Amino acid sequence: AIGDLVLDLHDLADVAPPLGVDPSLLRAPDLAALLGTAPGTWRTLRHAIFDLLVSPEDPGLGEQCLVPAGQAAMVLPCRIGDYTDFYASIYHATNVGSMFRPTNPLLPNYRYIPVGYHGRASSLVGSGTPVVRPSGQLPGQAEEQPPTVGPTRSLDYESEVGVLIGGENAMGTSVPIGEAADRIFGLCLVNDWSARDIQKWEYQPLGPFLGKSFATSLSPWIVTRDALIPFRIPAMVRPAGDPLPLPYLADPNDQATGGIDLALDVTLLTPAMQARGEEPFHVSRARFADLYWTVAQMVTHHTSNGCNLRPGDLLASGTVSGPEPTMRGCLLERTWRGTEPLRLPTGEMRTFLEDGDVVELRGTCQREGSVTIGFGGCTGQVVGAIV
Amino acid sequence: AIGDLVLDLHDLADVAPPLGVDPSLLRAPDLAALLGTAPGTWRTLRHAIFDLLVSPEDPGLGEQCLVPAGQAAMVLPCRIGDYTDFYASIYHATNVGSMFRPTNPLLPNYRYIPVGYHGRASSLVGSGTPVVRPSGQLPGQAEEQPPTVGPTRSLDYESEVGVLIGGENAMGTSVPIGEAADRIFGLCLVNDWSARDIQKWEYQPLGPFLGKSFATSLSPWIVTRDALIPFRIPAMVRPAGDPLPLPYLADPNDQATGGIDLALDVTLLTPAMQARGEEPFHVSRARFADLYWTVAQMVTHHTSNGCNLRPGDLLASGTVSGPEPTMRGCLLERTWRGTEPLRLPTGEMRTFLEDGDVVELRGTCQREGSVTIGFGGCTGQVVGAIV
Repeated sequence: AIGDLVLDLHDLADVAPPLGVDPSLLRAPDLAALLGTAPGTWRTLRHAIFDLLVSPEDPGLGEQCLVPAGQAAMVLPCRIGDYTDFYASIYHATNVGSMFRPTNPLLPNYRYIPVGYHGRASSLVGSGTPVVRPSGQLPGQAEEQPPTVGPTRSLDYESEVGVLIGGENAMGTSVPIGEAADRIFGLCLVNDWSARDIQKWEYQPLGPFLGKSFATSLSPWIVTRDALIPFRIPAMVRPAGDPLPLPYLADPNDQATGGIDLALDVTLLTPAMQARGEEPFHVSRARFADLYWTVAQMVTHHTSNGCNLRPGDLLASGTVSGPEPTMRGCLLERTWRGTEPLRLPTGEMRTFLEDGDVVELRGTCQREGSVTIGFGGCTGQVVGAIV
Repeated sequence: AIGDLVLDLHDLADVAPPLGVDPSLLRAPDLAALLGTAPGTWRTLRHAIFDLLVSPEDPGLGEQCLVPAGQAAMVLPCRIGDYTDFYASIYHATNVGSMFRPTNPLLPNYRYIPVGYHGRASSLVGSGTPVVRPSGQLPGQAEEQPPTVGPTRSLDYESEVGVLIGGENAMGTSVPIGEAADRIFGLCLVNDWSARDIQKWEYQPLGPFLGKSFATSLSPWIVTRDALIPFRIPAMVRPAGDPLPLPYLADPNDQATGGIDLALDVTLLTPAMQARGEEPFHVSRARFADLYWTVAQMVTHHTSNGCNLRPGDLLASGTVSGPEPTMRGCLLERTWRGTEPLRLPTGEMRTFLEDGDVVELRGTCQREGSVTIGFGGCTGQVVGAIV
């Protein structure tokens, strides 16, 4: 993305001079082939495109390959092989834990393990894809009553950051923490839509399943790791008394630069607001650098058992929340399980999402002296259940 | 597989007369394209191959396409998109639950929900692939002690049945129980290798992750649903007092014929046994029909939230165990968490797997008046941790 324009790599392969990379990488149907190459190739291509777009000799060359964003259909960067969702915000884990397990909010493993679980790859969709309200088994009214079946009554979003993996480690080998950054092709936004009532009833003992697998939305652009270098900041400083990361997860360089100064905003637009011409309601702003675990730690932990991460795999951070109520990245936390509803400009109240609601995630890296990077909105509108 | 021979579909496409299906399905590099077609196509192809192999006119035709199994390399049937592991044996769930949660072995949702979780697709491997002992965070010696890091000390197998999915339901739609059988292309054996210490420390609150994702082995053959018709038997009769399946999971036809009379055997061969020329030690024999949930119920539940199952997705049953100790499908249960070690013919004792051990799963459908169906062994040898 260049402003409101999109650079078409297929067109570029036809008109550009040699760019220093195999042209078949540009002509491929998606990014899978490029993700299979090494970081040096990603960097070469990025710089060649920069040079081309600012070339004084042939200013028209790049323009031949630019398409207005409004005319482009946004699709996934590639077919995602495996999708893993982490739980890297200690604020989120503590908030949710205190609702689901009041006596035991943060489990003993949290400060040692970047907790994660396998998500569903088939239902990953591009920004703008409508999200059908899922049905399922909902907990009975009282402890001893059987479940009921019907559309979820507590549909939620989760504002997360996604990591698109490049390269591959062979099964049985792991990625040392000092090399983990080279496996990060780039970042995007992820909305991990969640049905809280389905999740609550099903999640023990094997974790979330149908409460998540109905849809997960991705923003249309992958912001490359190199583009984020100006926004690298120290990782979260662990509170006094917390254990240090275990040696395989500890790297001074990662602690010094493993945070990314990325602000995550969530807005909500209801049909009534839209009818009245209201602007979307700003629900929350969180900081990606508030995560307890860095992306490199997630990559290294994930492969510590010899699990192979393949090009085009997706990791997600889990809901990014912060210490303040306005920094809570899902409605479950933001409305504190519905006990603190949001009051919208129309006078409407929201605890969870209703049909017709549009959720948009946005990500922004902004720093004096640097160009501002926007991640492109990750939107989805809730559609009524198919009964 | 025809006895000790393998039919090469690529060769068949070259020499056979029209088989009633698009020949490109036979020439494809794997089964993905065939899985994307409808059950009628699978059936047409199956019957055409039967006719060809028994054809009195040209007895040599089929033979041109048969290769000795020993000369064939066994690979996965296709690139598996998503892999879902269920927990469908109430015996297994009760046994394991009583070890991990003594006061609360079987959770309240078990008799309502075919509990499942997303597994890792990238580390699915074919039978015969060595399994590297995984390392990871192991629970501290005492409750309050920090974890240690190292190779697992409780490497286990799980004897499961896999279901290869054909066809696709669009996102947002579900598969009614009466139509679920049409999504079952066929069955295979699955060894869901597990590191119990890693699993125990990591699994709360989001479920198993690195304790499983280092390797999962598949048997080389998919036994088609049609081939299993002679072995269909009633599904497990629920004990008195258990709730009936909820309406969306209830189908009299599925209850009457949704069980499969399939025996699952597990054998273990240690290096010392091999050196002495011992036969593999028979560890357990379980019955697939002892599952609490049918395959059709798994398919329908999985899609009940609108989740799309794609051709080449894999479901697995979870460990298949039965009411007797000799019917327990993993070492955690078979040795009751190591308290009842197995004594092998060499005098060796086993609680969990040691380096060099070979585990083989076998599946057999046998019934008077029918041809016996073997599933082909699913084997794997444990290789020492890479340190």
